[in-house]
Amino acid sequence: MSQTPDSAVRTYIEQHRAAFLDDLAEWLRIPSVSAQPDHAADVRRSADWLAARLTETGFPTAEVWETPGAPAVFAEWPADDPEAPTVLVYGHHDVQPAAREDGWDTDPFEPVVRENRLYARGAADDKGQVFFHTLGVRAHLAATGRTAPAVNLKLLIEGEEESGSPHFRALVEDRADRLAADAVIVSDTGMWSEDTPTVCTGMRGLAECQIVLHGPDQDIHSGAFGGAVPNPATVAARLVAALHDEHARVAIPGFYDGIVELSDRERQLWAELPFDEESWLREAHSYATEGEAGHTTLERVWARPTAEVNGIGGGYQGPGSKTIIPSSALLKLSFRLVAGQDPDHVEKIVRAWAAERIPAGIRAEITFLPATRPCLTPLDHPGLQSLARAMGRAFEGPVRFTRSGGSGPAADLQDVLGAPVLFLGISVPSDGWHAPNEKVELDLLLKGVETSAYLWGDLAENWRRAP
Amino acid sequence: MSQTPDSAVRTYIEQHRAAFLDDLAEWLRIPSVSAQPDHAADVRRSADWLAARLTETGFPTAEVWETPGAPAVFAEWPADDPEAPTVLVYGHHDVQPAAREDGWDTDPFEPVVRENRLYARGAADDKGQVFFHTLGVRAHLAATGRTAPAVNLKLLIEGEEESGSPHFRALVEDRADRLAADAVIVSDTGMWSEDTPTVCTGMRGLAECQIVLHGPDQDIHSGAFGGAVPNPATVAARLVAALHDEHARVAIPGFYDGIVELSDRERQLWAELPFDEESWLREAHSYATEGEAGHTTLERVWARPTAEVNGIGGGYQGPGSKTIIPSSALLKLSFRLVAGQDPDHVEKIVRAWAAERIPAGIRAEITFLPATRPCLTPLDHPGLQSLARAMGRAFEGPVRFTRSGGSGPAADLQDVLGAPVLFLGISVPSDGWHAPNEKVELDLLLKGVETSAYLWGDLAENWRRAP
Repeated sequence: MSQTPDSAVRTYIEQHRAAFLDDLAEWLRIPSVSAQPDHAADVRRSADWLAARLTETGFPTAEVWETPGAPAVFAEWPADDPEAPTVLVYGHHDVQPAAREDGWDTDPFEPVVRENRLYARGAADDKGQVFFHTLGVRAHLAATGRTAPAVNLKLLIEGEEESGSPHFRALVEDRADRLAADAVIVSDTGMWSEDTPTVCTGMRGLAECQIVLHGPDQDIHSGAFGGAVPNPATVAARLVAALHDEHARVAIPGFYDGIVELSDRERQLWAELPFDEESWLREAHSYATEGEAGHTTLERVWARPTAEVNGIGGGYQGPGSKTIIPSSALLKLSFRLVAGQDPDHVEKIVRAWAAERIPAGIRAEITFLPATRPCLTPLDHPGLQSLARAMGRAFEGPVRFTRSGGSGPAADLQDVLGAPVLFLGISVPSDGWHAPNEKVELDLLLKGVETSAYLWGDLAENWRRAP
Repeated sequence: MSQTPDSAVRTYIEQHRAAFLDDLAEWLRIPSVSAQPDHAADVRRSADWLAARLTETGFPTAEVWETPGAPAVFAEWPADDPEAPTVLVYGHHDVQPAAREDGWDTDPFEPVVRENRLYARGAADDKGQVFFHTLGVRAHLAATGRTAPAVNLKLLIEGEEESGSPHFRALVEDRADRLAADAVIVSDTGMWSEDTPTVCTGMRGLAECQIVLHGPDQDIHSGAFGGAVPNPATVAARLVAALHDEHARVAIPGFYDGIVELSDRERQLWAELPFDEESWLREAHSYATEGEAGHTTLERVWARPTAEVNGIGGGYQGPGSKTIIPSSALLKLSFRLVAGQDPDHVEKIVRAWAAERIPAGIRAEITFLPATRPCLTPLDHPGLQSLARAMGRAFEGPVRFTRSGGSGPAADLQDVLGAPVLFLGISVPSDGWHAPNEKVELDLLLKGVETSAYLWGDLAENWRRAP
């Protein structure tokens, strides 16, 4: 799917590269951590900043949309041609928590460029990938001599993606008229590697819960009482241990009900990807692969659901020792879901499974966060062809197909707007999403700009709107 | 074993009660937390304070003994009669960690009296129970008209008991000449209840370890990698879940090797104690009993070994969620041991058991703290009779026999000095050792003073020294 690149687009991008990166750094300095209440003002500041920047870019409309939580940003730039298709770009302006002491080499909210990489929380997930569209649309206009994009371009950049998008679906439902689109472009995923540009065809969903187990009313002496009362930390550990069977399959009854199994064709395409376990492990900062029996590593992260413990805590974790039975214990569990899995069903079966495992004397408080649905676009969808062509021009080479193991609220857009979802991402696995020293490769970021510059024209020419 | 109390002893105690409590409060204000390195200076201050106070009490010798860790205090008051037996009182001046935010109603290091109870960290464990001997010996002298105690009285008050007494055995070995005694009185246990005074005949031992499990080099994204690499928090949880079998017996192979089983006589005596599960549960601040099949609650805490998780931690434990696979996880495990169990053997089998359960990709760091041996004195030992008589006079009623589920370095004293160990404790289960709002009942504290006042004379009269 390689196409010829456009020298006018490339010249324009080269001329505006420095200012583009300065602007992005300014945005990355805002610690818009949606999961931490004390950063609520920063998330708002991030939304205000983006709306102002989109206005400067040329969007006739750029608005901050309130939600019961953190605000989103909406922008709109109509095409000249009233018959042009409408495209909605989705991304998010909030970021994961980050603190220098988590292992960052530099301040996570003070962007620095080292070795042609931009390091900052949000550099890849997702501010960098939202922001490349601002230069992309201007390059599209400059190179084609247009004063308006070839498509009716809309942007919806939410502020709660890293907190599970609790108000996103309601927002999309409330504003469905203004968000109406023929296609959704999700700019919040990645590609295979620097050398292997890919288009993602789906994301896993996500159901998350917190389980607090209450035992004694206070920490008690493990000598005076140990061996004769239930220990909530032990109960927490037993729940985690019961999540999987000996084949590393999730052992919660009903968990796999109704899932869409991987097709032979996609399995074959994935097997042809240049997967190297050693370099994959390096990107995972891990020392061994381990997972569901009967599946490859790629199948495990792209096409199989999981149960994972993201956090566990209880009792004394400081220096030395403290011989107590702790009063309580905490579990943070998450379940990645694949097409065909319903988060409501997952919540129901997890609650039933946990309830059966709570002994007398322990009280469990189980809280589910709002879930994210899985999302999958068929391999033969025509929209994927436009995207793959635009990417092929930017990268001057063939484009392959993958999926993402991560989760985003793309499925809500698909459900509510009735529009197919296409994934445009230039991040690579080593970018360290959610981890210390998150970065984006500057060359790839600019390929993202270029793909955006080509995409709107290709879609306008080749996309047939639904009748 | 009820005896007639001595009105001269009681009058003396009543007259000196206020000053005694003021002095104790002064000591309790020193936060001598041995497990926390930043309190090292406080532990030293506590030792200095005690040595000075023992000199004021009348002890001709009161010294601070250095160790490679926290200092101990030694004091000696020889009897007039060179043929008198020698008694060594053991206790400790260090305390468990405590912070207001753990659930204390008042500052743990600012003692307050409410409803005839003295609240402070160390009030019962162990400063209060050490300190009652200072008034006890003076009451003994005042009531008998002596200028020196009826026994050669020695005190050894260590400073690392709450840290597992890492240097205690070496100290006792180094100073065995000066510590030589015919009997050891351990003042670091409790009794059944306010209404049922008891003498403790043994304590459990304690082996403690920390297991750190290292997985990915940093926290990684649970979407991008989840389902395909081992999660160290899951491995930690599986270790905890594997500690016990379905009968709540410890499942580590060899754990029960060689243990001294409870005799039918002691089992019978315990069955006659006024045990009420509901009030025991209140003291445990717990809502159900649970433990090894085939044993009563008392047997479980007094005569059966345990495996307990005192702390577990890994990943994100803050507000909201963070979809990561954590880089590492922490376990703090402790094993209560009974007579016949060797801590070195326990360490060996725990290491072997854990090693079998660490999957590829996870690296385990296992550290054992210095262990405390179990200790048991036969029911028919003559020393117990003197102690039970002294206690019977103070309480004006019968005295029964129990054990303690807790652990202390008494067995080292028994081993090195070749002297039997007697346990004199007036604390009750509701005192909240190691927990928030630790307290001592003032009436019982003064009964401890009184028991101490009677004990030295009874021992001198009735104790036959080893030939």
